Amino acid sequence: MAALSAFRKEAQEPLSNVIAVDIGGTRFRVGLFDEGGKRVRVSEDATNRSGGRPWMLAQMEREFRTFQAESGEPIRACGISFGGPVDFAGQQVTSIVAPGWENFPLSSWVKETLGVPCLLDNDANAGALGEYRFGTGRGCESIFYVALSTGIGGGFVCEGKVIRGKDTLAGELGHLPMADSGPRCDCGARGCLEAFSSGSAIGKMAREWGERRTDVMPRMVELSGGAVERVTAREVALAAAEGDPIASRIFRDAARWLGRGLLTVIRIVNPDKIVLGGGVSQAGKLLLDPIHDVLDERKSAALPATTEIVIAELGNYSALYGAVALALDAR
Amino acid sequence: MAALSAFRKEAQEPLSNVIAVDIGGTRFRVGLFDEGGKRVRVSEDATNRSGGRPWMLAQMEREFRTFQAESGEPIRACGISFGGPVDFAGQQVTSIVAPGWENFPLSSWVKETLGVPCLLDNDANAGALGEYRFGTGRGCESIFYVALSTGIGGGFVCEGKVIRGKDTLAGELGHLPMADSGPRCDCGARGCLEAFSSGSAIGKMAREWGERRTDVMPRMVELSGGAVERVTAREVALAAAEGDPIASRIFRDAARWLGRGLLTVIRIVNPDKIVLGGGVSQAGKLLLDPIHDVLDERKSAALPATTEIVIAELGNYSALYGAVALALDAR
Repeated sequence: MAALSAFRKEAQEPLSNVIAVDIGGTRFRVGLFDEGGKRVRVSEDATNRSGGRPWMLAQMEREFRTFQAESGEPIRACGISFGGPVDFAGQQVTSIVAPGWENFPLSSWVKETLGVPCLLDNDANAGALGEYRFGTGRGCESIFYVALSTGIGGGFVCEGKVIRGKDTLAGELGHLPMADSGPRCDCGARGCLEAFSSGSAIGKMAREWGERRTDVMPRMVELSGGAVERVTAREVALAAAEGDPIASRIFRDAARWLGRGLLTVIRIVNPDKIVLGGGVSQAGKLLLDPIHDVLDERKSAALPATTEIVIAELGNYSALYGAVALALDAR
Repeated sequence: MAALSAFRKEAQEPLSNVIAVDIGGTRFRVGLFDEGGKRVRVSEDATNRSGGRPWMLAQMEREFRTFQAESGEPIRACGISFGGPVDFAGQQVTSIVAPGWENFPLSSWVKETLGVPCLLDNDANAGALGEYRFGTGRGCESIFYVALSTGIGGGFVCEGKVIRGKDTLAGELGHLPMADSGPRCDCGARGCLEAFSSGSAIGKMAREWGERRTDVMPRMVELSGGAVERVTAREVALAAAEGDPIASRIFRDAARWLGRGLLTVIRIVNPDKIVLGGGVSQAGKLLLDPIHDVLDERKSAALPATTEIVIAELGNYSALYGAVALALDAR
């Protein structure tokens, strides 16, 4: 009898929706999801970087009000993925790069302006959480998510929880010290993984080749509209996929460094899966083959690591689904 | 009233003790501890390697019976640290190196022979657990323990739990891929951390110097009784502590590689503390100074990692105290 009345009570509760927000340097997305994490609708647009924080907050408020008006169900909570450093304990953005965001208490702003509870995390942790709950990580004990785009970020989810670490810097894969020398990283050090394997590093490597000898990379230059200085990781990947030898070599080298970085992750936390997300992960096989080569070369009977390396199931939406998970946790 | 009677009931329960065992390649220890983890007594001896499993089991049984007879309280459980690979889920030793131990269900043997429940783990995880519960890790959210001896092992404890990973290989710091080339490791790969920074690697490096030019390392040779081929990490550390230039350089290089490995741990899991245990950790400052140099050289305002690097508080007894923790969990 008790169980039955509990069931009835639950069934009589009104359904509700949540809002998920993914704030990135180039794109931002706002989505309405139901309590099962099912997408009701999503809007997406380019980020107006010069508009800074005021512009972004105005967009969020407008989208939120629109969804509120359109949603058949009350909106119960909000989750936000932010493309930059976040103080999770303090629920504030700590980015010193994005104009106006430094130490901004975004969750409090949502609560005050929009009237719902909110949880905020950085995009790498959100991506990890999104894939763990709604993507390729479903049913895993632990996954390590790698956000491969302009830079490299990462997030580690173990038994449903994001491991943040003492300085909330766990998962900072971009600054793995791969070598004592090597290319200089934005952080000031030399030989960080980001300086070998990020989208920026791949583009830079190609442009450096091109400055010396444009003749050996006609296809990359053609794909970028005829200008060596406009070659990015995208053109390198496209030319490599067509078999261009220089592009293939640049991409392969970057992927091999990444492979060594991922083996490091396997040695330290041995997750069920390593999930590659972010724009560069769309290169798929171009990235996975050299990574598997490195793992094969170093494999040993005494260390039978069976961690799978996979591409993110939710594609560009890993972090947005992470924001859904944050919203569901914020209720 | 309820609380008071519960207190009385507890106070009337008989006190009890646990047995902790640390099985290492060179030493083995058996200890009697009370339920608060306080040492009642500990026996220690050299491991008879050629005696293999039968010899070790006989020692364990004998020590157990002696403690049982001497203990004023009933012995409620046993915990074991084993110096080699362990299948924690299956509670068996999986070592393929130690004679007779492969796939031996040690916990079941204890239960059947000695009549108490038992939990078994490898020495690196046990060391981590020992320091977390009874050593320098008390009050931390997470610690990463590094066992620096002949080889290099590691264990990661987060919120009281050992993170084991998919293949129970989490914490395998010895096989961090530090370089694509470099010295060959016992696992078959090249450039593993163990091949740069373990006790074996330090001794080997010194002997290789000595084979070429004994004249530049008289002190190390003297400390080893006049024979270059008997120089080990111990003589290198002793000579380095006296300021011997070659010994200092060998030790410093090994410690710098270790520093880069530890920075990798900080980037991936950002623990409260990294705890250095095992025989090589007794070099203390000789090891810590070059590690801190590497961390300082690579530090960045954007990555304010505050993880402390410390020497194990329990010294040679980290793993034995881990066995106490295992025994307390086995009750």
